[in-house]
Amino acid sequence: MRGAVLYAPGDVRVEDRDDPKIIEPTDAILRLSATCVCGSDLWPYRGLDDVQGPSPMGHEYAGIVQEVGSEVTTIRPGQFVVGSFFASDNTCELCQAGYQTSCVHREGVGGAQAELLRVPLADGTLVSTPDIPTDDLVPSFLAASDVLGTGWFGAVAAEAGPGKTVAVVGDGAVGLLAVLAAKQLGAERIIAMSRHAPRQQLAREYGATDIVEARGEDGVAKIKELTNGLGAHSVIEAVGTQESMMQAIRATRPGGHVGYVGVAHSVELPGAELFFSHVHLHGGPAPVRRFLPELIDLIWNRQIEPGKVFDLTLPLEQAAEGYKAMDQRQAIKVLLHP
Amino acid sequence: MRGAVLYAPGDVRVEDRDDPKIIEPTDAILRLSATCVCGSDLWPYRGLDDVQGPSPMGHEYAGIVQEVGSEVTTIRPGQFVVGSFFASDNTCELCQAGYQTSCVHREGVGGAQAELLRVPLADGTLVSTPDIPTDDLVPSFLAASDVLGTGWFGAVAAEAGPGKTVAVVGDGAVGLLAVLAAKQLGAERIIAMSRHAPRQQLAREYGATDIVEARGEDGVAKIKELTNGLGAHSVIEAVGTQESMMQAIRATRPGGHVGYVGVAHSVELPGAELFFSHVHLHGGPAPVRRFLPELIDLIWNRQIEPGKVFDLTLPLEQAAEGYKAMDQRQAIKVLLHP
Repeated sequence: MRGAVLYAPGDVRVEDRDDPKIIEPTDAILRLSATCVCGSDLWPYRGLDDVQGPSPMGHEYAGIVQEVGSEVTTIRPGQFVVGSFFASDNTCELCQAGYQTSCVHREGVGGAQAELLRVPLADGTLVSTPDIPTDDLVPSFLAASDVLGTGWFGAVAAEAGPGKTVAVVGDGAVGLLAVLAAKQLGAERIIAMSRHAPRQQLAREYGATDIVEARGEDGVAKIKELTNGLGAHSVIEAVGTQESMMQAIRATRPGGHVGYVGVAHSVELPGAELFFSHVHLHGGPAPVRRFLPELIDLIWNRQIEPGKVFDLTLPLEQAAEGYKAMDQRQAIKVLLHP
Repeated sequence: MRGAVLYAPGDVRVEDRDDPKIIEPTDAILRLSATCVCGSDLWPYRGLDDVQGPSPMGHEYAGIVQEVGSEVTTIRPGQFVVGSFFASDNTCELCQAGYQTSCVHREGVGGAQAELLRVPLADGTLVSTPDIPTDDLVPSFLAASDVLGTGWFGAVAAEAGPGKTVAVVGDGAVGLLAVLAAKQLGAERIIAMSRHAPRQQLAREYGATDIVEARGEDGVAKIKELTNGLGAHSVIEAVGTQESMMQAIRATRPGGHVGYVGVAHSVELPGAELFFSHVHLHGGPAPVRRFLPELIDLIWNRQIEPGKVFDLTLPLEQAAEGYKAMDQRQAIKVLLHP
């Protein structure tokens, strides 16, 4: 099969790779309908995460089950399924508490920018749609695999809800879908922090009531100005840098909630400032599996359209162009067709 | 009047100070029935916080209202009252949300190791008891002023409650009263981390079901051993150092809650570890005022006896001895009689 491999920063190649095979009896093999490039793929692409030799890329996927192992009982060949970047048994105490990305049998799913994908712990990881979706729904199901589920977790962790003013730091796909999530969760006011016109427009379509272009301390001041000097009730952090974390913490009122889902890179939180900020802090790798049944239902019934974040679609063979477009912020998110 | 003043690290003197007077019409003057030395007083006493010239010490107090300003309406002379280390209006949006220690009109209360004390924003800050308490109840009401309210907030922030396993890092008065709070909140299992026999005994009296003597990574390993390898649901941090914060975070299971109330000193939280820990983090200066009505009720009805943390009582004149005893861990907490 064909698949994308990162050889070095800036060097993504699509090449022949071995077809994945069932290894454990709990595995499934999917033929992918669509895959994509993630903001977190840009960290190694930019050389900010180490690249240890050629690495098959991608962890977002939706597609048709081709084969299952002998112990798989609920997932069947022919189903259209969505899964997440960590496989989980969905039965352990941590999964049952809704933290499937900390499952005691957690296993990474990688190499999804390809035609075929092996998914471990298929019964606990994959969720099927009611029927095979029409093509126009596929991008939205693909978004559910990571960026929608991650934005949704950010909004839940930030306790977005009725009566709340929610601010979102980060205007990538996750940030934009956090806006959508906050809207679905009933937030009263949603402030998107963005200085890019196309992203501002999508944020408004997804439910943003205000746009703040200022960043850093100016951005914090603007959020306070919009919230009677107090700060937002809920702030979702969807970047993962020191600056964005501090912007999120400082834009939150005492007693408010920061939900952080940007993978933290070189972040050190100052203890005394955090102490006196009085905020709640929660986040981490989103337990997408917790939300998948609900998200699939919303997409199937066309109540939300998270697939709009894909503003560039390319054949898998052109993955390198996709990375480049996202790296240079020419595209919000790139869908790849195997 | 007489009052304790810190001149330099290790140098506490009781000397004549001016009697406090009503300055604002919302002030009250109290004649203190009892005051005490706080673990946080030890930071400047040990030279770990700067001492900028002679500083009147103390922020824990209970006593009889002697005089009130012209705009005070609910607090009256003759009442026995308890207040907290931050004065609050108790009416602003942050107070109403339960974060009185972040009140928009917040004002520090200091110099309480003395005979008389001025308390700003008396109506919003002070809570009166049903009647003048008998002497044996005074230590418990004094404890409510800070250490009980702080331990209680730690337990609430850590979401201690039915079905939960709670661990407490720190065996000072706050940590011991966090054990009491966790018990009152219905926790199923309470693990006190302490290697001091008298403190272990008081922890057991307050409801600890297990004692862990190990610290740091060994302490974390022991908590995991006691919790099926997962970590506690709720961990209360009551020290404020880098070591104690990391011990608390690492002893908490993914999805669990850390309530931190030790005033953070030179703490830097590693972002990536925090991200992947999946814990909830909340804490800060305890909004004692939120809990005072309930705590006063529990004490008045003799359902809890937080005053047991005072294992040394001295006349105010001997404040220096009290500091020394706490510094050398010869006493858990020292009550001073004005």
